[in-house]
Amino acid sequence: MAQLARIPFSTAEYRDRLHETQRRMEDRDLDVLLVTDPANMFYLSGYDAYSFYVPQILIITPEQDQPLWVGREQDYTCATETTWLDPDNIVVYTDEYVDSDKHPMSFVADILAEQGLATRDIGVEMDAYYFSAHAYHELSRALPEATLHDVTKFVNHVRMIKSDAEVDCHRQAARISERAMQKGIDAIDVGVRQSDAAATVYEALLEGTETTGGDYPAIVPLMPSGEGTGSPHLTWTNETYKEGEPVILELAGVVNRYHSPLTRTIFLGEPPERVRTASQIIVDGLDAAIDAVEPGVTCETVEQAWRDEISGTIVEKESRIGYSTGIGYPPSWVEKTASIRPGDTTELQPNMVFHMIPGVWFDEYGIEISESLVVMEDGAEVLADVPRELIVK
Amino acid sequence: MAQLARIPFSTAEYRDRLHETQRRMEDRDLDVLLVTDPANMFYLSGYDAYSFYVPQILIITPEQDQPLWVGREQDYTCATETTWLDPDNIVVYTDEYVDSDKHPMSFVADILAEQGLATRDIGVEMDAYYFSAHAYHELSRALPEATLHDVTKFVNHVRMIKSDAEVDCHRQAARISERAMQKGIDAIDVGVRQSDAAATVYEALLEGTETTGGDYPAIVPLMPSGEGTGSPHLTWTNETYKEGEPVILELAGVVNRYHSPLTRTIFLGEPPERVRTASQIIVDGLDAAIDAVEPGVTCETVEQAWRDEISGTIVEKESRIGYSTGIGYPPSWVEKTASIRPGDTTELQPNMVFHMIPGVWFDEYGIEISESLVVMEDGAEVLADVPRELIVK
Repeated sequence: MAQLARIPFSTAEYRDRLHETQRRMEDRDLDVLLVTDPANMFYLSGYDAYSFYVPQILIITPEQDQPLWVGREQDYTCATETTWLDPDNIVVYTDEYVDSDKHPMSFVADILAEQGLATRDIGVEMDAYYFSAHAYHELSRALPEATLHDVTKFVNHVRMIKSDAEVDCHRQAARISERAMQKGIDAIDVGVRQSDAAATVYEALLEGTETTGGDYPAIVPLMPSGEGTGSPHLTWTNETYKEGEPVILELAGVVNRYHSPLTRTIFLGEPPERVRTASQIIVDGLDAAIDAVEPGVTCETVEQAWRDEISGTIVEKESRIGYSTGIGYPPSWVEKTASIRPGDTTELQPNMVFHMIPGVWFDEYGIEISESLVVMEDGAEVLADVPRELIVK
Repeated sequence: MAQLARIPFSTAEYRDRLHETQRRMEDRDLDVLLVTDPANMFYLSGYDAYSFYVPQILIITPEQDQPLWVGREQDYTCATETTWLDPDNIVVYTDEYVDSDKHPMSFVADILAEQGLATRDIGVEMDAYYFSAHAYHELSRALPEATLHDVTKFVNHVRMIKSDAEVDCHRQAARISERAMQKGIDAIDVGVRQSDAAATVYEALLEGTETTGGDYPAIVPLMPSGEGTGSPHLTWTNETYKEGEPVILELAGVVNRYHSPLTRTIFLGEPPERVRTASQIIVDGLDAAIDAVEPGVTCETVEQAWRDEISGTIVEKESRIGYSTGIGYPPSWVEKTASIRPGDTTELQPNMVFHMIPGVWFDEYGIEISESLVVMEDGAEVLADVPRELIVK
């Protein structure tokens, strides 16, 4: 189950996911749901290929037994190999629709019209990464009598409480995160070229463990160093690491597209007192937030536990300290449902998964120490087992 | 120059790129260009960070000395570290605009209004990957008196003829492609877990060469095997490779975001006669297409050379056999300007770069053998030096 497989979950589980989505569609009076986010497509159909650079769509209606997958002709066998769908439910457009005046959304509109759905209430993911402004215009032009509703994050919310099988993927992914982090800590050293350290980390992420090979992460390893640690989204360069600088390593082991992100900060040489102090405050705050996790508690209460702990210290932080995570495709593993921040009143429930990442950036450098966790009946299960501290080399 | 550097090109080169873009804006009567495609942002400003999962925009006007970069507060130092822009031309929105009712496009609209541009002709990349339908609606709502024009691929076309410094990046990237291909060919074998072979390939892509570390590719290595070779966009699984099956390996070495893609098909064991025959036809057709490349020749003429060569054989192909490539960010390294296919009358010019990939898929398997090339005054310069043949192990 936790191995990378072409169809990682049981048909019963896919049916449950579909039924829950259909139930929520009825609550919203939606006749059709058009799913374009690759993570949501994977969740509902199993479709898994690096083909999301062309338009791909799942059509969902409340009565269906299975979603209808629509994609490019060239990807037909990707769909038959990776989804639980019958071949009848896999429909392809020809290359006439690729980079041309004919848009795949007009093909989708034709399918909806044939099914008598062209005048109905149709949900579209207006803010999904691969649903462009152009695609929306082509769709609305081809369906002038339909009412289009924005359902960005609609399926993301269905995904938020994981099944036990999904949590098992996160646990296996955390084994990979642990191993890649250790290999990264070993590789990052004074005089080592940053790109060589990145190569070691990537190799470990894909090698995985003896029982589970690794899948590619939605975000490449982020590894800013020195003054760059103030820039959390830098990758790496050709430069070598220098004595006396901090290096941040943020990575995620991935099994069947489920991510277990993990971050540590490594200091090369003797860290200044301020760096040691700030790191300890971050660890204490993170401990406090993790201790506050239990079913029924809200996201903002967890953030408050962090805030109370760091109050009055040199550490200040305005942005969120965590977010729900799970399935991810480039460019992100963020689920975009709940955030651990003031004002987010989402109640924690068993089998939710969060990445707690209280990154703190000062003028000259930044420090990030993070953990992924599962909400369990009796509190947080921290997924990876790596010393929660500033790593000094 | 060819090393991964925070700012890889001279300021003079960035100014040339900006001026050419501005010249074309005047031809199109555009008062403002909003650039959101990460590859186009990199081309014009140098901005390079894995932060394109939040809205980021370059604002270009015809009179400017420099583009104006707009992004998230957290990424301010990424912009100061990786762009050639003065700090005055880097403007950030706060986290109030992240995953909230306030959209960064309303922030952009405010900037345009302050500069007296709210009623002008504004170009937007309607079909760029990271310009969502929602972003477009927020922008048009905030600028009710502006005229918005679709300029998808506008900057892509400026990028199409590379400078000598850019071609040098492609050459360095090809050294990495060669090395990673050889490591991949060595690693892929009967009984080897697919994910372990992927780990070896990725490690080699990032290790690069002694002089140039590697950057991450926009597309992960595609490595379908067995019947999966009919599905070109599959990645890898936990399964082991089996005797008697083909394995496709498509990868790209990357230097400073410039890609030099390369593909070979590896057969594990003695290939059936039909596989040998088809492979030879593909190589002959690819040779013919490469021989046809020279300045002044059109894309469709190059495709015709391939078509003439394979005519009357067991190989048939309807889709394009190549495309312009260059800078890439996930999910694609395709430049989306010219394609080597019937009907594309783009004339080849020196310093254009193409990936020639005549993939052919039969019912039971597929074969892909590809080369990247630069158009030179005297014909094609094939970038990588790897035997152009079916690899039999």
